[in-house]
Amino acid sequence: MSEAERFTIDAFHRGRFHLLQPADKGHRAGLDAMLLAAAVPGTFSGLLADLGSGAGAAGLAVASRCPASQILLVERSAEMVDCALQSIALTQNANLAGRISVLQADVEATGRARVAAGLDDNRFNFVIMNPPFNGPRDRPSPDSLRRDAHVMTDGLLEAWIRTAAAIATANAGFAIIARAESLGDILAACSGRFGAAEIRPIHPRPNAAAIRVVVRARKGARGMLKLMPPLMLHAEEGRGFTDEANAVINGERGLFADR
Amino acid sequence: MSEAERFTIDAFHRGRFHLLQPADKGHRAGLDAMLLAAAVPGTFSGLLADLGSGAGAAGLAVASRCPASQILLVERSAEMVDCALQSIALTQNANLAGRISVLQADVEATGRARVAAGLDDNRFNFVIMNPPFNGPRDRPSPDSLRRDAHVMTDGLLEAWIRTAAAIATANAGFAIIARAESLGDILAACSGRFGAAEIRPIHPRPNAAAIRVVVRARKGARGMLKLMPPLMLHAEEGRGFTDEANAVINGERGLFADR
Repeated sequence: MSEAERFTIDAFHRGRFHLLQPADKGHRAGLDAMLLAAAVPGTFSGLLADLGSGAGAAGLAVASRCPASQILLVERSAEMVDCALQSIALTQNANLAGRISVLQADVEATGRARVAAGLDDNRFNFVIMNPPFNGPRDRPSPDSLRRDAHVMTDGLLEAWIRTAAAIATANAGFAIIARAESLGDILAACSGRFGAAEIRPIHPRPNAAAIRVVVRARKGARGMLKLMPPLMLHAEEGRGFTDEANAVINGERGLFADR
Repeated sequence: MSEAERFTIDAFHRGRFHLLQPADKGHRAGLDAMLLAAAVPGTFSGLLADLGSGAGAAGLAVASRCPASQILLVERSAEMVDCALQSIALTQNANLAGRISVLQADVEATGRARVAAGLDDNRFNFVIMNPPFNGPRDRPSPDSLRRDAHVMTDGLLEAWIRTAAAIATANAGFAIIARAESLGDILAACSGRFGAAEIRPIHPRPNAAAIRVVVRARKGARGMLKLMPPLMLHAEEGRGFTDEANAVINGERGLFADR
């Protein structure tokens, strides 16, 4: 098998950007990254950090949706950083490439180690994250890269959200997508850091429990939590996405009222 | 004005029980109490405490829905305790009266004071609560009884849920209705006490944020949080309740899948 066959190039946002990803291992990006990016208002202007960016799907989607945004992808894995760099270099992404850069760093680094890794305090106007989300109780994947992206150890959300708060400017935006069961841990980790949280539950179908939550908040804000209507990915029957899910996934509509 | 005119007698569950309430002051019971009662499975058998029961609406609704339940209404206000006693004595409630008793006690009492007040540890198979829910930031009501029922001081949810955990048996059920904005505080207070939480958001209409959440959990359970589909009280247009809301409010359908 040749080197070239180990990757795929996938179109997102109806072809408005493309992503190079490992074809057969690692955490392949898709729906979650698009939903997360849709939490950033299309009018957002400033510097955004995508923590644990993987191949860069969410960060590139924000760049595609928000023409006034500058994106820093932050990823620990050298292989995924390489994917991100190759994605940015694709001719299909030429219109976004100038607004995206990549930093190889561990999101869980703290204090001086974090600053030394390139993540300065009070620098980003928005921080987004799609943290590794399989708990230790789940059966680990036999594939080591995938395990790295999926195994969530105790305290991971706390560590990641602590970093997000540290590197965010006053009043910066914050958004996370995670499994719905993590909602309590997310709200606990946001407490005292990010306020005025808005929760958007993501349900596969109208009568099924939520599989994901997107939580958006603002650093230092004192407003009250809001539990928004859910996003239904599919109708009660059938395999197609709902109109709203389709629009959100394709970058045509935001996940919250401000678009 | 005669003494009799200061109260109303209202029918609930399509007339299956009645409630005597102050006509012109206090926190008048209704929707919230019916939604809370609907979190208890109709098959529930055992002793249930309704903490901060007011006139007893939620507790009587559980008694009406769950023929194998025994109910203890726990209320601090002497006037509301008197209402509850008069409600139980109504001829319309004769079929429930033998399964309901009333205790005048402060839910926030701790340790020996709580036991002395009649709230023993490890005694109840289910605990429900509809705590006073207006935060100090809200304008207080000029009416003192209403203020007592609505003003939530910092730490109230923590104190109430601590009491619930103390008086609940191992694996006992727990359910709370509260303003949606309190979701984070509820989950934090449940942490380490009640697990396997199920959240049911209550929305006025499909495109509006949730106004209430009902959270149900189990003492000592280790299962994961589940974010259930929302209950819509009304459709996009019109003043009538949705079919589901009507059935839930009238005791014909539970708020969770187990009925």
